[in-house]
Parts: sequence; structure tokens; C-alpha cells
Amino acid sequence: MSDSLVCVSDYERQAQRLLPKSVYDYYFSGADEQQTLRDNVAAFARWCIYPRVLRDVSTVDMSTTVLGQRVSMPICVAATAMQRMAHPDGETATARACLSCDTGMMLSSWATSTIEEVAEAAPGAVRWMQLYIYKDRALTQSLVRRAEKAGYKGIFVTVDTPYLGRRRDDVRNRFKLPSHLRMANFETPDLAFSSKKGYGEDSGLAVYVTQAIDATVKWDDIAWLKRMTSLPVVVKGVLTAEDAKEALKYGVDGILVSNHGARQLDGVPATIDALPEVVEAVEGKVDVFMDGGVRKGTDVLKALALGAKAVFVGRPILWALACEGDKGVSNVLQILREELHLALALTGCLSLKEVNRSLLRRSELISRF
Amino acid sequence: MSDSLVCVSDYERQAQRLLPKSVYDYYFSGADEQQTLRDNVAAFARWCIYPRVLRDVSTVDMSTTVLGQRVSMPICVAATAMQRMAHPDGETATARACLSCDTGMMLSSWATSTIEEVAEAAPGAVRWMQLYIYKDRALTQSLVRRAEKAGYKGIFVTVDTPYLGRRRDDVRNRFKLPSHLRMANFETPDLAFSSKKGYGEDSGLAVYVTQAIDATVKWDDIAWLKRMTSLPVVVKGVLTAEDAKEALKYGVDGILVSNHGARQLDGVPATIDALPEVVEAVEGKVDVFMDGGVRKGTDVLKALALGAKAVFVGRPILWALACEGDKGVSNVLQILREELHLALALTGCLSLKEVNRSLLRRSELISRF
Amino acid sequence: MSDSLVCVSDYERQAQRLLPKSVYDYYFSGADEQQTLRDNVAAFARWCIYPRVLRDVSTVDMSTTVLGQRVSMPICVAATAMQRMAHPDGETATARACLSCDTGMMLSSWATSTIEEVAEAAPGAVRWMQLYIYKDRALTQSLVRRAEKAGYKGIFVTVDTPYLGRRRDDVRNRFKLPSHLRMANFETPDLAFSSKKGYGEDSGLAVYVTQAIDATVKWDDIAWLKRMTSLPVVVKGVLTAEDAKEALKYGVDGILVSNHGARQLDGVPATIDALPEVVEAVEGKVDVFMDGGVRKGTDVLKALALGAKAVFVGRPILWALACEGDKGVSNVLQILREELHLALALTGCLSLKEVNRSLLRRSELISRF
Amino acid sequence: MSDSLVCVSDYERQAQRLLPKSVYDYYFSGADEQQTLRDNVAAFARWCIYPRVLRDVSTVDMSTTVLGQRVSMPICVAATAMQRMAHPDGETATARACLSCDTGMMLSSWATSTIEEVAEAAPGAVRWMQLYIYKDRALTQSLVRRAEKAGYKGIFVTVDTPYLGRRRDDVRNRFKLPSHLRMANFETPDLAFSSKKGYGEDSGLAVYVTQAIDATVKWDDIAWLKRMTSLPVVVKGVLTAEDAKEALKYGVDGILVSNHGARQLDGVPATIDALPEVVEAVEGKVDVFMDGGVRKGTDVLKALALGAKAVFVGRPILWALACEGDKGVSNVLQILREELHLALALTGCLSLKEVNRSLLRRSELISRF
Ligand SMILES: Cc1cc2nc3c(=O)[nH]c(=O)nc-3n(C[C@H](O)[C@H](O)[C@H](O)COP(=O)(O)O)c2cc1C
Ligand SMILES: Cc1cc2nc3c(=O)[nH]c(=O)nc-3n(C[C@H](O)[C@H](O)[C@H](O)COP(=O)(O)O)c2cc1C
Ligand SMILES: Cc1cc2nc3c(=O)[nH]c(=O)nc-3n(C[C@H](O)[C@H](O)[C@H](O)COP(=O)(O)O)c2cc1C
Ligand SMILES: Cc1cc2nc3c(=O)[nH]c(=O)nc-3n(C[C@H](O)[C@H](O)[C@H](O)COP(=O)(O)O)c2cc1C
Repeated sequence: MSDSLVCVSDYERQAQRLLPKSVYDYYFSGADEQQTLRDNVAAFARWCIYPRVLRDVSTVDMSTTVLGQRVSMPICVAATAMQRMAHPDGETATARACLSCDTGMMLSSWATSTIEEVAEAAPGAVRWMQLYIYKDRALTQSLVRRAEKAGYKGIFVTVDTPYLGRRRDDVRNRFKLPSHLRMANFETPDLAFSSKKGYGEDSGLAVYVTQAIDATVKWDDIAWLKRMTSLPVVVKGVLTAEDAKEALKYGVDGILVSNHGARQLDGVPATIDALPEVVEAVEGKVDVFMDGGVRKGTDVLKALALGAKAVFVGRPILWALACEGDKGVSNVLQILREELHLALALTGCLSLKEVNRSLLRRSELISRF
Repeated sequence: MSDSLVCVSDYERQAQRLLPKSVYDYYFSGADEQQTLRDNVAAFARWCIYPRVLRDVSTVDMSTTVLGQRVSMPICVAATAMQRMAHPDGETATARACLSCDTGMMLSSWATSTIEEVAEAAPGAVRWMQLYIYKDRALTQSLVRRAEKAGYKGIFVTVDTPYLGRRRDDVRNRFKLPSHLRMANFETPDLAFSSKKGYGEDSGLAVYVTQAIDATVKWDDIAWLKRMTSLPVVVKGVLTAEDAKEALKYGVDGILVSNHGARQLDGVPATIDALPEVVEAVEGKVDVFMDGGVRKGTDVLKALALGAKAVFVGRPILWALACEGDKGVSNVLQILREELHLALALTGCLSLKEVNRSLLRRSELISRF
Repeated sequence: MSDSLVCVSDYERQAQRLLPKSVYDYYFSGADEQQTLRDNVAAFARWCIYPRVLRDVSTVDMSTTVLGQRVSMPICVAATAMQRMAHPDGETATARACLSCDTGMMLSSWATSTIEEVAEAAPGAVRWMQLYIYKDRALTQSLVRRAEKAGYKGIFVTVDTPYLGRRRDDVRNRFKLPSHLRMANFETPDLAFSSKKGYGEDSGLAVYVTQAIDATVKWDDIAWLKRMTSLPVVVKGVLTAEDAKEALKYGVDGILVSNHGARQLDGVPATIDALPEVVEAVEGKVDVFMDGGVRKGTDVLKALALGAKAVFVGRPILWALACEGDKGVSNVLQILREELHLALALTGCLSLKEVNRSLLRRSELISRF
Repeated sequence: MSDSLVCVSDYERQAQRLLPKSVYDYYFSGADEQQTLRDNVAAFARWCIYPRVLRDVSTVDMSTTVLGQRVSMPICVAATAMQRMAHPDGETATARACLSCDTGMMLSSWATSTIEEVAEAAPGAVRWMQLYIYKDRALTQSLVRRAEKAGYKGIFVTVDTPYLGRRRDDVRNRFKLPSHLRMANFETPDLAFSSKKGYGEDSGLAVYVTQAIDATVKWDDIAWLKRMTSLPVVVKGVLTAEDAKEALKYGVDGILVSNHGARQLDGVPATIDALPEVVEAVEGKVDVFMDGGVRKGTDVLKALALGAKAVFVGRPILWALACEGDKGVSNVLQILREELHLALALTGCLSLKEVNRSLLRRSELISRF
């Protein structure tokens, strides 16, 4: 465990010191007034854990499967774009750390490392491809093909981004990639987000999305994707029972309850608040995952108790990369693992199977004087 | 978009720096302890947006009508008095900006520009007249006649101001108009709020209202107004279902749910909280509008989802005027338009018709530790 | 209206600057952690006012009666001890101000002016005597006799003080009266709280109460009091429906819902929260009053709407005395009167008779992000 | 009463000034983000006290029994480890103070004084032994035997600590005992927490627990303990009705509702929130106690009203020790006694028997503007 970095928030504070402001802003920001950003984290405190005592918790089994792949714990890495802004090794460092911690990694379409580089950096590791559907469908298809070929085990298609959310600091900073970096999976400067023309007075990435990403995407396109690949397909970004049922109709293999780290539309629910209704609507037909605001072992416990098969963490990995590269990512994953282990043991759960809704109740509200 | 002024609150902060204290205080203040002032804004956060995904949102139609007039978006400008304190061009600048943004403007009885000046500044634009009922009914009638003649398309009669609310800073500042300005629609210094006698140790405007405005006004006077003019009449300042039903009885053409920007009585509900019961009571018989605390695109979305036909914004226009005159007003309206566009697209709404109650749920309350 | 002192909280801030710390502490303090102290004020914000519009509010009648005496408004002065610490004229200044504002004053048993001095300072004014029941019953009876003789119109017997509440700052300050002052209604130094022996390391007043006040007082003693005097008797300090019903059985003439300004036991309800159940239990058989945390006109409106016949104010009078003597007390009463007038007019109430429960609803809770 | 230390929080502030940081951190810390730590205290404010008036409260009886032993008040001392870090006399000072205040003390297995030393320091006093179940069961048994022999009157077996909770500051400080101290009840350095090998980069105590304490402990081990000793056995650390019922089945003599001072798992309920369901489940068959966050007399009153037979205080004793040794502990117990006396008298309770659920209601929630 790293010197005096003993929890995820220690990494966050440290990363804020180390990163250039515009990079930190891009990583940290949520949409608009960032109410959902704060709530993604705060909402976990609205659930209280009622622990059981006097069970033999000398061993606790934390392993599970995600889309059929075994992982050592129900904590995986979410897709976050452009990781080389945090550390020169970027996504390849993350991949190595995931391998060493025996858990899965989701690679962003907008990685600053190629699909293939990441695969080579951590052979045999469990990983999935996050997909944005581009206006150019051939290009979109080629991303899927490359992931299949490189041994990725599933496609997480992001459905909450027909336009980029308004992140005020990115507008103020006119955010773009540092000139030595590019979205490594694309050929042309326009698609690689390294256009020499620049992106005007707005967030560069918002302009990029408007130009390149397909705002017409509909459920039929999920059917198209399912037909195109034999990999399991998960829709990433569902927040309602209605859309969850729709997803089932279109044959998805899993649902990731996500608000994109509160980066798309401010005012949407914290993901832990949206999770239960999706779980209920899905009726166990496919796995439900969640991401957003997971920062501690008890957060994971709560998500599992509310029906998630596993959780994904986004920003904590970026803080870890910024602080200590792959070692940092391993440390952060290790901290979360130990915290979850403790949470399980101290609630009397011998394995993930014993984690259920009966562990939780709504918190009493605080009255403050 | 202006340099580093990327949202309404940026304009507010900047305006506070630029305006003389007593002007800023007058614009900003709410009544008494300003609880409703804060709540007008905060109340929007008590609603959570549940977005739908995977709909073709490549085009989104934001146009609507207000009192039969087409506007390019459901965001119009509320009457705010004495705009020349914010910028030399005052109400005429606002009028030009509204024209350029293709939306409607409500002109205050207490404008520092005349009814006619404002009409000439932006020919062909959609505008309405806000009316205070004076003790002098002939004078009152003449304001209506002038508005009719100058092509205003409706009368918003303010019903929440038999006396002026107690705005503590205005009392402390003994607020009055700078000597080079006057309420331009009135002849005599007494009526133009430029009396040489002064207004004693109270807020000058409070004294003015007690002297000039009619505290005996009743529902019958609405009937009188309806008989007097063929323009549509909207009552501005209704907060209860009971008064909404009363308004219908007296034949009004619309209801503006408003607490006068929290400037009249502290402790009344936030307008977004009062809106639903008025909408329900009105049963679609006339249009219901709202104002108060609208600062972001998602606020507009919430008001529409709760049944408002359109919203009006007051202070944001004053901040914009103070910062950048008509260009500022255009910018602020443009920001709100883009934010609303994004809110619609990211909730899967292709037009305003698809915005309804099912998008919203009450927020989970925060438990803070 | 005084320069820049435009509301009660202005007076409070100013008084804090002017008063010696130990006096300010004594006046300000609540018991223990002062949660109820804060809540007495905050609780009013849990009620929202729903105003009606378009009624002729050109005249509003605020007069009412208290124990059969007409007062010009439903805002009277509560008993607060030792007012000469705030201003040399002490209780006599308060009496003059009440007379000039045509409202009633309750005089503390522990006044630093005598019952007779206060009567002479404001002949013809409406006033009542607050009574502590001393171990020495003859002494107690003599206080009542003197009040009767001096034209006081009722007895408010305090029932919440068998021991003095623990006010931490008073313990720290070892609070006692400045040496030039005494509780003027008593002969001996022991009873006049001016003992030369001193009061040890505790709050002097707490020691005084333990020594002098009768902790055995029961409902039978209310019967004793009723038999002893023909003046109306009000029990001051009831917070429950149960005790209100008990009070009716013992023939009281009124009930003052009070927690002694949150000075006795921390954690008891805010008085505005306790008021409704007492009103309901009393079924209109006697008048119900309230005190505690009233600081603005809308607070008074809320108390009346919840069934109080009138309210009493404690600390605001002390702040006013400290700032400006009798003129200050008049100013504060005048401010409250004007604020109540505005609250009535802006809610469409033409007189106190129209103030009822339908004006209020529970506030929406704030969700803070 | 000590100069300017007039309440428990005064002692806390003072102790923070006096103690070395790593000792203060160890004493103060809760698990993880310390939400439950704050809530243990804050939760009391969620109950409001409704006092009754006009009862003869000239004498109030506060005595009760705990496990059959008479104590002068329902406030006893909880087991807290390693008290000699706070004061050279450590647990023996606490024992002397408890004797002088005529109340009971629970001694930690991890005391820095021996079972026998503590017994000798305060002959005839009421005390109980807190027991951790070690992997070494013979050792565990010997602790019980020594307690029996030294006249301890009961065993409080801690059931919430199969592993030590994650207290971040202890990890940062790599907490261990100062070199001149040891857990006095154990022979070997390994068991006495004074290993020369050190404890790596983690909290030393966490490592100690993993090495020495038995994580396999189950309900059967409670049966084993019951068979082993004729002393009454209380399970310390139950938070649910389910476990309370389980405890009854295994024949325990009492249940201590505790979350270990919020030091084990963050996010568990405040103990005052968990108490009612345990009381209900137990149906009066054995005594229910509580600890956690008790800092004032009204906290005790609330716990009793919700069904606790007595409460235990942990940290307040450590603050007192740090400030003033045994005199401090006496002072703190005396403050709590006086506060409870006042709370009883001011709610009209003549003895503990009159304290019941009818005194309490849930607090109104604060709305903050
Ligand atoms: C800096 C950053 C970049 C992200 N990039 C992507 C991305 O390229 N594709 C995507 O689907 N989600 C992206 N996300 C969303 C994450 O996959 C995930 O939903 C979110 O980060 C989870 O919330 P958390 O950061 O609170 O753990 C990004 C999030 C962050 C913070
Ligand atoms: C400085 C200022 C002046 C106003 N003047 C008027 C007015 O002359 N007539 C009127 O009916 N409302 C007036 N209002 C109220 C507005 O029409 C509108 O109800 C309110 O500003 C909406 O709230 P918002 O400022 O939070 O957007 C004024 C509001 C402000 C802030
Ligand atoms: C400094 C001070 C002295 C008081 N003295 C008395 C008193 O002598 N007798 C009594 O019955 N109540 C006394 N009270 C309580 C008041 O009568 C009244 O209940 C309380 O002040 C109302 O709350 P407020 O101060 O928030 O208006 C005192 C209150 C204060 C603040
Ligand atoms: C510094 C410290 C050491 C403790 N040591 C022990 C212990 O050795 N055994 C045990 O069962 N509980 C221990 N506890 C828990 C206490 O017995 C008790 O449950 C808790 O302190 C009550 O909460 P309070 O500190 O808010 O009063 C300890 C608590 C603290 C604060």
C-alpha cells in the first residue's frame, strides 16, 4: 500500500495536485452544475448497512463472472477516454494492473492507445470494448472487428451520448488533447481528435462529438450491432425500467446502469438510485451492472445488495494512473478489494451469494441544527 | 459565446462586479430573509430527470406559441423594471436581443424606455405589456391603449403587488432611480418615480407603490380590464389552485405562476412547487406559464414537464444587460436555448410535445454526514 | 425607523456589539447544545405560505384581545428577566414603548424594576405579571397581590422551571447580576439575587433557582393560585396536548405554548411545532398563545394560522433595549407590525379573522447538492 | 466542576490539544469516511423530547441495576483499550472514578492494566470484563477465569470484530502502542501488542487482530462461553432484531446494542437508531443496553425512553482521563449525572421507571434555506 495513500479519496486529492488543470478538469467534471456528480457519491450514504454477526468469516469468496468471464472480484474498470493524459503509459498501464489484480477492463473507443496495444500489454487478461457509434458505420464496424480479433470479450455500447454533455470547465478551457496525443484507434486527424483546424471557442470534444458521432442512433442500431458481432453486447447508459425492458426486447446481453459519470445531463438520478428499478425490470434475464460514484468497499457492497452483478470504476483509475501509473492502479484496485473483503466479513457474508437486499435499509435522514 | 461567460451564473457573478451596489441590490433582492429567493432556484433540484435513450435526436424542435404568437423556444423575457440602470440602452437593448433570438419580451410598466421606443427598437418582434393597476384608472387605461397601438400582443397584469414587498437592502439603500433616469411611460415626476421631494427613509419604490398603485384591486378589476381591451389578458402572480380557478371564472387568457422573483412575500412557495397544482386546476383551458429561478436548460425542461407552456426569465436578462448590453442578452438567451436543446436530446425528446410528467420524479433527499 | 436597523436581526447583531459578553450570553443562550434554540427560529421555515390575490387590502385590521384586553396587534412582549442589564431604564423603558405601540407587556418576577415602578412608567397600559412560585408561598402570594393592586390584568405562571436549564455560557461566566442591580421585587439579598456570599462555580442563577424556587409545584398549586386571585391565570410553558388538557381541568384561563426561549431543556420541540396539538386539544375553550423564535411578520402570521390568539416576543425586546432603549423597543414593535401588515395584505387577509390553516402547507424539503 | 470544562465536548476539545496526534487519532477515529461516527452523535437529535410539567420533581431517583448489580445511575463506562496512553494511571484511574461515582466499569481485554490491578485499584466496585475471543481458546478461557477470580460481575463478549475496522488515520500513522506500554493481560510480546518485529505499513492493531483474534467465531462459541462460566454473558455489538433473537436462543444474559463506536464498518446505523428494533425483538426477556455517541444527559434520557436499561460511554472517559486523570473521569460522570437529573426533572419524571416511549417523537426535519 502506498505511503499515506490509503483510500480512493487520497488518490483523488493527490491527482489534483499532480495533473495540469485542464486535464484534471476534464477528468473530474460533471455536466452543468454538477449536482448529479456530487449525488453519484452522496447517494450511497442514503443506504444503511445492517450487519449480521457471529458467522465464520475466516474466508470470504469475492470472485464472480462478468459476461461469462471469471474475475477475482466484482470490481472492474470502466472505459475512460484518453488515459495517456494522466500517465505516459495510459491504457496499457491500466491493462497491466487489471491483469495483475485479476479483474476486467473496459477500453474506451477514445483511448490514446490502440485496441491492439492494450491487448498486447496484458495478454490473457479479461477485457471489453466500449463502443461509440460513429456516423461512419463502416468505421464503427471496424472497431468491433478489431476488438474481436484482439480477444476482447464483449462490447459495451454507449447509448447516452448523441451529443456531449455540457461540462463548463471544458468549455472554459476549450478542451482538446495535448498535441503529442491522439485517439489512437483512428486514422485521420479529424477522427483522432487532433485536427489542426482546432475546435473554436467551445469544448473541443463537444465539437468532435457533434461532427463524428451519430445522433440518430436508435434501438434498431442495437439490433444491427447484435447481428454484426457474436460478442455479447451490453448497453451502457440506461437509467430507467422502460429502457431496460426495451433493451431486453432487442436482445442485449447485459445492461450497465450508468449516467456516464454524471457527465452528460445534470439532474439525472444517481446511479445507485436508478439501479433497483432496472434490476427489477430485468427480472434476472441478463446481468445488470452499474457505475458512477463507487469509491469504497461499502459502495460496492450496496450496489451488489441492490442487484448489480459487478460495478465499474472510472475516475479512481485516472487518479491512480496520475499518481503512480500501473502500480497506482493496482494499489487502488487492491484497496477496494480489501475494503470489500472487510465489508463482507463485517456483515457476516461468506460469499457474494449471501449479499442481498436484506442487508440494507434506507438511512434515517439527518436533522441538522 | 462570450469569453469565459459560459452559463447564467457566470453572468450573475460578473454583473455583481460591474453594477453599483444599490442597483445590484435592487435587482438581486428578494423579500425579507430571502428564503423563497433561494428556494426558487433550489426547488428545481428537488426534481430528478429520468432520461430515455436511443431515439433519433438529430433534430429537435423547440418552437412553440405564447398567446398565439410563435416563438423559437419556450423561453421568454419577464418584465423587469428600470433596465437602463443596467445598461444605457436598457429595454431597447433587450428588445433587439429578443428579436434576434426570435423570442418574446414582456415590457414592465416601470420601464425606463417608453412603450413606443421599445416597439420601434425591434419592429416585428413579439412583445407583451406588463401592467400595474394604478389608483388613477384613466392612466392605467392609457397604458393599455398605448400598448395596443404599438403592436403589443397581450397584457400581463400583475396581481401580487398591492404593496411592495419588503426588500431590506432597498430600505437600507433608500433605493430610488439615478437622477438621469425616470419611469419613461409617465408624465409627472411623482408617477415617473423621479419626485424631487424624495421618498424619506424607506425604500423609495415602496413609498411610490403605496402612493400610486391601487391596493383595492379585486377580481372585478380583471373583468374591467378584459372589457377594456381585446388583447389577451394574463394574470401574473398566481400561486394557488383556488386563485387559478377564480381566474378562469373571470375569463383570463392565461396564468403566469409567479412569486414576483421572490420579491413580494418571503415564505411563499418556490414557483416550480406551485406550478403543478395550478396546471391541474386549469385543466388545459388556458395556457399556464411560470417564472422564478429559471437559470438552466434543465430548469426549463422541468417546468415544461410539469405543464408550463413556456417560462419567463427575469434577473438573467439584467445580468446580461449589465455585462454586455444587447449582445449579452442574446448570449444568455442563446446559452439557455443550447442547454434546453441538449436537455431535450439527452432525454430522448424530439419536440416539446414529448416533454411530459413521466420524465420527472421527486429527488431522493440527500443525507449529509 | 432607525438608521440601517431595518429588521429584528439587525438589532440582534448590533446588540451583540454593544452588550458586555456575559450579559449578551445570558440573554442569548439556550440550554445545552442550543439545538432547540436554533430550531425555534428555523421551524417557521418548515411552513410555506400560500397567498391569495386580488382582494381589497387597502385596509387591514390587526387588533385583537388578550385575556379580554384590546391590543392593537397580536404581538405582545414576553417576560424577560433583568432588563436593566440591557439599558439603565430597563423594564420601565419597555413599558413606555408598549404603551406607545398600544400593545401588552408581561413583566418578569425577576425584573430589575418593581411591579409598581413599571405600572407608573406607563399608566393605563395593558400589562400582565409573570409569576415564579417560590418555596416561600407567602412571598409568592404577595407578588400576586402587588400585581393586582398595580393594575396588572393577568398572571402568567411559569411551569417549566422547577430547576434552571443548563446554559453552558452562564456556567462558564458564573453568571450573576452586576453589583448595582437587583431583582427589584424582593427584599433580602438572597431573594434579590444579590447575595454577598456569591454563588460558587456554577451559574449564579441556577443556584438561585435551586435555593428559592419550589421544585415540588404540581397542578394542585395551579388550583391554589386560581383560588388566591381573581385575575385570569395562564400557564406558561406547556408543550403537549396532555398537559393542555390537564390545564383545562384545573381551570386555567389561557395556555402559553413556550419552551422558555429554548433555555430549559434542549431537545424539546420548537414551539411552532408544538402549537398545533395544543390548539387542537384545547378545542377553543381558552385562548392559546405562543412564544419562541418569533422574529418576523410572517412568523406571526404562521402562528396565528396555526391557532395562536397572539404571540409574545422575548429576545427581540432585549436587543432593542440594548441598542436604543424605549425608542428601540418601539422601533422593533413597529417593524414587526409593518411586517405583519404586509404579510396579511400580501396573502389577501383583511383582518385576523381571515387568517387560518388554509394559508399554510408544510414546506417542501430542500435537497442540497 | 472543572474550570471551563462544563460539558463533555469541552473535554473533547481539550483532550485534542493535550494528546499526541496518533493517540488522539486512535481514540477519535471511526471506520472509513466516519459517517456512522458522526451519525452516532447526530442521530440523537432526530428524536424530540416532549416534556410534562407540574409534577413534584424535588427528588428524582436515578439508580438502577445492571446484570443484577446496583449502580447509582444508568450511565456506565464502556471498554476502551489502552487507557494508559491517555494518562499514566490508565484503567486504574477510571476504576477509582467509577467507584467514587458509584457506577460500573467495563474493562477491555486490551487494557494496559491487568485485570487484577484494576480490581485492586477500586475494591468493591462494580465491574465487568470485555472479552475478545482469541484463536487460542485456552488463553481466552484464562481471561475469563482471571476476571471471575478478581470479582468481575459479568462478561461482555465483543462480536463485531472478526477483523479490525479500517480506520484510515491508524493506517497512516501505522498505529502501535508507545514502547513503554503493553496490553497488560498477555505474556508474550506478540499477544501484548508489543512485538519487536513491528507491524508493517498497516495499522499495527489491524495486523494484531488478524494474527490473534479468531475470525471463525460463531453463535456456538457463545454457547461454549456460557458453559465455561457462571458469570452473566452479554453480547456486545448486535445491531439487528434477527441477531437479537439469535442471541436469546443461545441463552445470553443481555445484549449491548453497539457499533463499536463506529470503528468497525462505516455505513452501519447509529446505535440509537438500531436500539428500538432490538428492544422490541427481545420482548423484555433480558436487559438491553446501548453505547455509541452518548454525550449529554438528554442522550441518556432518549436511550432509556427507547428501552435501554443503561448506557455505556466510551470516548468521553478517554477525554476525561487525558485532561485530568481520575478526577476528570469523575467530573465527566458527574456532569452526565447532573444533566440526566435535569432532563428527568424537566420532563416530569420522578424516577427511571417513568421514562418511556411517550416522551419522544421523531424530530421535524429541518428545512434549510
Ligand atoms: C474522464 C472520463 C472519460 C470517460 N470516457 C468515457 C468514454 O470514452 N466512453 C464511455 O462510454 N464512458 C466514458 N466515461 C464514463 C465512464 O465509463 C463511467 O461511466 C464513469 O466514469 C463512472 O463514474 P465514476 O467516474 O464516478 O466511477 C468517462 C468518464 C470519465 C470520468
Ligand atoms: C429587478 C426586478 C424588477 C422587476 N420588475 C417587475 C415589474 O416591473 N413588474 C412585474 O410584474 N414584475 C417585475 N419583476 C418580476 C419579474 O417579472 C419576474 O416575475 C421574476 O423576475 C422572475 O424571477 P427570476 O428573476 O428569478 O427569473 C421584477 C423582477 C426583478 C428581479
Ligand atoms: C434573557 C431571558 C430572560 C427570560 N426570563 C424569563 C423570566 O424571568 N420568566 C419567564 O417566565 N420567562 C423568561 N424568559 C422566557 C421568555 O418569557 C420567553 O418564553 C422567550 O424569551 C420567548 O422566546 P424568544 O426569546 O425566542 O422570543 C426569558 C427569556 C430570555 C431570553
Ligand atoms: C479508543 C477506543 C477503544 C476501544 N476499545 C474497545 C475494546 O477494546 N473492546 C471493545 O469491545 N470495544 C472497544 N471500544 C468500543 C467501546 O466499547 C464502545 O462500544 C464505544 O466506544 C462507544 O461509543 P462512544 O465512544 O461514542 O461512547 C473502543 C472504543 C474506542 C473509542
